[in-house]
Amino acid sequence: MNACIINIGDEILIGQIINTNAAWMAQQLNLQGVNVTQTIVINDSPQAIIDAVEAAKKVANIILITGGLGPTKDDVTKHTLATYFNMKLEYHAPSFENIKILFKQYGREADERYHSQANMPVGATVLINKTGTASGMWFEQDDCIVVAMPGVPREVKYLMQYEVLPKLVERFERPTILHRTLLSTGKGETDLSDLLEQFEEELPPHIKLAYLPNTEKGMVRLRLSASGANANQLEAEIEKYKQQLQDTLGVYIFGIEEESLEEALGTLLKERGLTITTAESCTGGNIARKLTSIAGSSAYYPGSLVAYSNEVKNKHLGVQQTTLEQYGAVSEECVLEMVKGVQQLFKTNCAIAVSGIAGPDGGTSEKPVGTIWIAIANEAEVYTKKLQLGTDRLQNITRTTNIAMNLMRLMLLDALDSEI
Amino acid sequence: MNACIINIGDEILIGQIINTNAAWMAQQLNLQGVNVTQTIVINDSPQAIIDAVEAAKKVANIILITGGLGPTKDDVTKHTLATYFNMKLEYHAPSFENIKILFKQYGREADERYHSQANMPVGATVLINKTGTASGMWFEQDDCIVVAMPGVPREVKYLMQYEVLPKLVERFERPTILHRTLLSTGKGETDLSDLLEQFEEELPPHIKLAYLPNTEKGMVRLRLSASGANANQLEAEIEKYKQQLQDTLGVYIFGIEEESLEEALGTLLKERGLTITTAESCTGGNIARKLTSIAGSSAYYPGSLVAYSNEVKNKHLGVQQTTLEQYGAVSEECVLEMVKGVQQLFKTNCAIAVSGIAGPDGGTSEKPVGTIWIAIANEAEVYTKKLQLGTDRLQNITRTTNIAMNLMRLMLLDALDSEI
Repeated sequence: MNACIINIGDEILIGQIINTNAAWMAQQLNLQGVNVTQTIVINDSPQAIIDAVEAAKKVANIILITGGLGPTKDDVTKHTLATYFNMKLEYHAPSFENIKILFKQYGREADERYHSQANMPVGATVLINKTGTASGMWFEQDDCIVVAMPGVPREVKYLMQYEVLPKLVERFERPTILHRTLLSTGKGETDLSDLLEQFEEELPPHIKLAYLPNTEKGMVRLRLSASGANANQLEAEIEKYKQQLQDTLGVYIFGIEEESLEEALGTLLKERGLTITTAESCTGGNIARKLTSIAGSSAYYPGSLVAYSNEVKNKHLGVQQTTLEQYGAVSEECVLEMVKGVQQLFKTNCAIAVSGIAGPDGGTSEKPVGTIWIAIANEAEVYTKKLQLGTDRLQNITRTTNIAMNLMRLMLLDALDSEI
Repeated sequence: MNACIINIGDEILIGQIINTNAAWMAQQLNLQGVNVTQTIVINDSPQAIIDAVEAAKKVANIILITGGLGPTKDDVTKHTLATYFNMKLEYHAPSFENIKILFKQYGREADERYHSQANMPVGATVLINKTGTASGMWFEQDDCIVVAMPGVPREVKYLMQYEVLPKLVERFERPTILHRTLLSTGKGETDLSDLLEQFEEELPPHIKLAYLPNTEKGMVRLRLSASGANANQLEAEIEKYKQQLQDTLGVYIFGIEEESLEEALGTLLKERGLTITTAESCTGGNIARKLTSIAGSSAYYPGSLVAYSNEVKNKHLGVQQTTLEQYGAVSEECVLEMVKGVQQLFKTNCAIAVSGIAGPDGGTSEKPVGTIWIAIANEAEVYTKKLQLGTDRLQNITRTTNIAMNLMRLMLLDALDSEI
């Protein structure tokens, strides 16, 4: 089961849009045990399409094509493939029915001008696309499957999920494949693999562990994949190893599957009936934004302060003038007063305070760019941490945000000692 | 001048990382008048590399390869290409010199184990890579150019910009190509093209206008591209049309080239010696984050408040209890009091206040999800606007942020009437 992905579209080829379809499709195919040997991006030309299909046939028995199925002249995929497979186009009533339903949702009527969108190659399996007016097509010849889908990412996702992947699973006899993903933060890939050395050694050959780091989200996804004949047995087995992985890494695991760190922190606060606020200097509101990106965050988050200037730190958070003069705004002393100040100001149980030099300029030899102090507090204790990051402003803001949220999570779990 | 891009790497092929190199490279090549006919992603295997190069030769005379130049066993690009072009690998002193310099920056020493990284094919032009330890290679055979670069995006950018693109321009005689980009906001692509109908009609055939929308940033980039033999004349000509485009669109243009809306707003504030603050409910700190993402924003931004709960709106911003009860937090009355309150709290000249239902839940029949009120104020006036957006929480936050910043910009330019 080798697949080749062909993405058709000038806007990808000139770099106007980034080809996210290929990555998403490859991930989904991999999850089903299909190996992607190649992805090709070509323009909307019949010759390019035929050449790409011919080349793909040499390395794959599954060829997935996206793009070029729209109603305009540029869109030549359907005609090209029909000709290539020697099939006639004929009016396909269910496709037109689908177009009518979609138009109705927008209060419009689909007239005969849209009939040509519903003409489909006779002999191909038509894949009705509930998210768009262009149906997908499934061709099969000489043990090679060629599927054509529209290029809009939302439509690709729909057709892959509800039509193509189930059909592929049905078509090829293959073992059951199961996946479980645990999300870790606070440790890099190398540290994790040290901690997991024994766990990995003891994994049976049909269960694999993949490390998938995501710098932007400050986490490493740990994905267990198991394949075997007996679904029930496999299910029990992967659950066992998932639990073992969870036990080995303890608090470094903050969530599962598609969760985010801010979601995990929010859930913890909600469960414990606690509230949180923030006093942000160099992160400029980014922690607040993350916390409030979660629907329902008003249950634990009343509001917060961005304290950029020293005057605001002094006047609204009660940071003493002498602290600012003696230690500076980027100091342990300052964030300690900030965190206490904001906790009182918004009357919350928990608080996060941050002050640092995000860069790219503004550093001194004593406090270079990337020097950042974090303080976190609950009602019982306060914890501080100094970061020494790089010179990239946005990267510093992102990393500080993730680290601060994780410290807060660890404090709630009474696990700050795992920090050291 | 047709190019084919070949990206080598399993992590792209399995969808673990999105292929941003291809899009960036294609953009840069297009800007130099090089047409990209195809991009291919393959895995780290000699056969796949040779097959891809052979296939690329049929559609392009410039083949740009990224990836597979690292020091590990997986990295086979250099050996494969050397064999393909029948070249020996030999120790290349300038490449090792470069490795030593890079190691020194990290306080480390490059010993002989790194010699193999500096072995280069004899007969290829070596492209020294100041951003990484793997040098690039430029092969030329039968009027076809094959260039190999490492896969790290930063390194691709360096080598393309300082080595590959200048060499391509030198190698091929071609007309001068110039570009000018203006950034617009507040109008969609269709509205803009209506406004620019006459302008486009009057453009000479050697000057083209491209619309490049970016939903995330709430803008449409308008790129003028001119090609011709006489560089000086072309320069004068494209400047003239740029000015004409600017005059036609007036305040809808907020910046040029790589500027952002928050940067443009910051520049305006700085020029006028004004300060700004924000009182954010549903955007949860996102406007503050955007404003402070600009280095030097402390000159005009002292701090701000995220007022999520009604209590915070009342207690810290002075929104009256009767306002909250009678009109609700999502109302013109509320944002009017919020904007005045925050302006006084932080003693700034300007202020932005936002309150709305970001979703996906929490709407009523009277105020459905996506109902959002914005108020902006300077010392002389206050302006309000009601938005009716969709149900996607993050999209609503992003769009509201962009619209609010643009309203503030228009107020500073005394151009709020263009809003209607």
